[in-house]
Amino acid sequence: MAVGLQAPLASSLRPVAGCELGWAQAGIRKAGRKDLLLVRLAEQASAAGVFTRNRFCAAPVQVCRAHLASGVPIRALLINSGCANAGTGAPGLADAMRTCEAAARLLGCEPAQVLPFSTGVIMEPLPVDAIVKALPAAVARLDAGGWLEAAETIMTTDTVPKAASASCRLDGAGVNVTGIAKGAGMIRPDMATLLAFVVTDAAVVPGVLAELTRRAADRSFNRITVDGDMSTNDSFVVAATGRAGAPPIADLDDPRCGGLERAIGDVAQQLALAIVRDGEGATKFIRILVEQALSQSEASTVAYAVAHSPLVKTAMFASDPNLGRILSAVGASGIRDLDPSTVQLYLNDVWVARDGARHPDYREHDGQRVMRGAEILVRIVLGRGGAHATVWTCDLSHQYVSINADYRS
Amino acid sequence: MAVGLQAPLASSLRPVAGCELGWAQAGIRKAGRKDLLLVRLAEQASAAGVFTRNRFCAAPVQVCRAHLASGVPIRALLINSGCANAGTGAPGLADAMRTCEAAARLLGCEPAQVLPFSTGVIMEPLPVDAIVKALPAAVARLDAGGWLEAAETIMTTDTVPKAASASCRLDGAGVNVTGIAKGAGMIRPDMATLLAFVVTDAAVVPGVLAELTRRAADRSFNRITVDGDMSTNDSFVVAATGRAGAPPIADLDDPRCGGLERAIGDVAQQLALAIVRDGEGATKFIRILVEQALSQSEASTVAYAVAHSPLVKTAMFASDPNLGRILSAVGASGIRDLDPSTVQLYLNDVWVARDGARHPDYREHDGQRVMRGAEILVRIVLGRGGAHATVWTCDLSHQYVSINADYRS
Repeated sequence: MAVGLQAPLASSLRPVAGCELGWAQAGIRKAGRKDLLLVRLAEQASAAGVFTRNRFCAAPVQVCRAHLASGVPIRALLINSGCANAGTGAPGLADAMRTCEAAARLLGCEPAQVLPFSTGVIMEPLPVDAIVKALPAAVARLDAGGWLEAAETIMTTDTVPKAASASCRLDGAGVNVTGIAKGAGMIRPDMATLLAFVVTDAAVVPGVLAELTRRAADRSFNRITVDGDMSTNDSFVVAATGRAGAPPIADLDDPRCGGLERAIGDVAQQLALAIVRDGEGATKFIRILVEQALSQSEASTVAYAVAHSPLVKTAMFASDPNLGRILSAVGASGIRDLDPSTVQLYLNDVWVARDGARHPDYREHDGQRVMRGAEILVRIVLGRGGAHATVWTCDLSHQYVSINADYRS
Repeated sequence: MAVGLQAPLASSLRPVAGCELGWAQAGIRKAGRKDLLLVRLAEQASAAGVFTRNRFCAAPVQVCRAHLASGVPIRALLINSGCANAGTGAPGLADAMRTCEAAARLLGCEPAQVLPFSTGVIMEPLPVDAIVKALPAAVARLDAGGWLEAAETIMTTDTVPKAASASCRLDGAGVNVTGIAKGAGMIRPDMATLLAFVVTDAAVVPGVLAELTRRAADRSFNRITVDGDMSTNDSFVVAATGRAGAPPIADLDDPRCGGLERAIGDVAQQLALAIVRDGEGATKFIRILVEQALSQSEASTVAYAVAHSPLVKTAMFASDPNLGRILSAVGASGIRDLDPSTVQLYLNDVWVARDGARHPDYREHDGQRVMRGAEILVRIVLGRGGAHATVWTCDLSHQYVSINADYRS
């Protein structure tokens, strides 16, 4: 039940020169579904990633970090669903490495040039043999036009495949940026992983790409929350194949950086918002905007406190304008010197609380009208400074509990 | 649907010399229910309180703090349900004061000797006239045996009244401690307030009582969590009437302090655990014990991270031994140098994860057996130090969403 979200048209997804995608059915958890994706990158592509900060990070996350740190050019991404390979200790690391070795043999590169990603049940061993056996079929399907099927392959409880494209011009050369993602949170918890892969045919040196990746994450995946849980496997990787023909961007002061940053950021934000709109059980798409904070960090803290409050989220589900819950969440967010009398609260165009108390002109039917919509803006003005932050989230519904309480079968 | 909790017998609640309780029906939100409680304390009683740290704290919380800070002996507690008097600005403060003035007139004391408490809908004005009109009926019912009816009067969505007693001997004098509480969190959100009142007939000077109150809160109400929301009205007050006959405890080194601290702590913990067992929608009572942490604060952080994880809570509801969720919550708790390979996880007597990965001997049916029980111990051994902490919580069920999504009617 995605909120205002439809599957992208295959024709809207721009092929990226130097990037091919192929899927296979490895039968990792269920037979007869696409569960293995191979992404082949041109030689000398650069890649960068941001990963979960969960200390119980999965084996593939550890392998990704090591392979990226080794400095060799990345030639392939290998993604499986159905098993997270997390909480699996040293054998899990060896399993992730074996899948890299198998892919490297087929592609004629080094294992360190393959980045592995897994999503699925935690604390169960990766079925390496099934993956190795299915890999040739994925290689056989490698195709630059395979983006939509790639997005379908990494879906778990997502109801809509998530993919987006953007383009820009660098020195007159047209550059494409295309990405895919799968959802996280408010999602079947044994598969509660955010995975996102964005590829561009621009040429970017690794150090610059790493910074562009961090910036894109901070404005997209790091600004969404569904249930506040941080997966063991969350990964966001950006690769640049350099096949568009423009000379490489070698430092952040390069004037072309801005255009590429916007294109990558645009794709990342489209994917991130699609994840929220398709949050499992979601019936509302909610933007929380905190303004006039002392710092951006303070604004974020308040926005997340509101976004994570189960009482706010259930009120949104019920279209119940019980808006004191929002003030309460602001008050509980940990800003010790917050003065309630400078706080304003708006719901879309409705001024709900003025100077920390119910606005005298506020009428509940006005709040109700906004709450009944599928898209809601909660605007909180702190009256403390000039910083602001946005967080996107969804509501907490019966279906969230159903999905997460279902036994893994 | 309280987990293993029954209403206390009136005969189990010890009267406390110098404390009388009387209820009334003020019709604050609904007609024909007890919604107003007056507690009269003997002259020269001392009192201390801990209150919500929510910056949007309710008007009565602000008045309580001011009255306690003024140093005059407290003569009465006045508690209403049905309206929180929070998010009400300056008029809300004036309303709370008017109820104190009305009670003071009837009891022949100063308004500053009355502590007001409210619980109910946020951002709506307090019906002061209804409260003032009902007060004489509460005065007429004042009785030292009124504890169980007092507990019933402050119930909102609680399904079981919460009251407990303990006793100890100080210098040969028998001392009683009796308290009542109402639940918070996983409770109808417009009434999501924890209120607890404990009275003893020991004699304790205010400074010592304040410290004993803080200690009791840290081992009881500050160790429970239902949904992580912190109400605008949370209040825990301890009063000491001095009517038991033992000489006053004037400093914390007094050897009698230990016995009284245990008795107050015992009552506070009984009330706190009753709140969790009666958490709205709760079907499981869960104790999370974190051991071998570097500090107690670290142990608490990890325990709360697990207790607040919606994925852990829904797994508990479903009796689904999807225990990687617990490891994931531990990993996401923010301990940057946590080494997963020193972490052990036990569920009751079952060793689930050894050295950070699934224990080779762990079988899912053993986990399932524990998860099917109504009372579950989650023990997490960090292998980092000698500190430990316990947090009590409950599961996240369909009923939680139903209750919190119900329109306030």
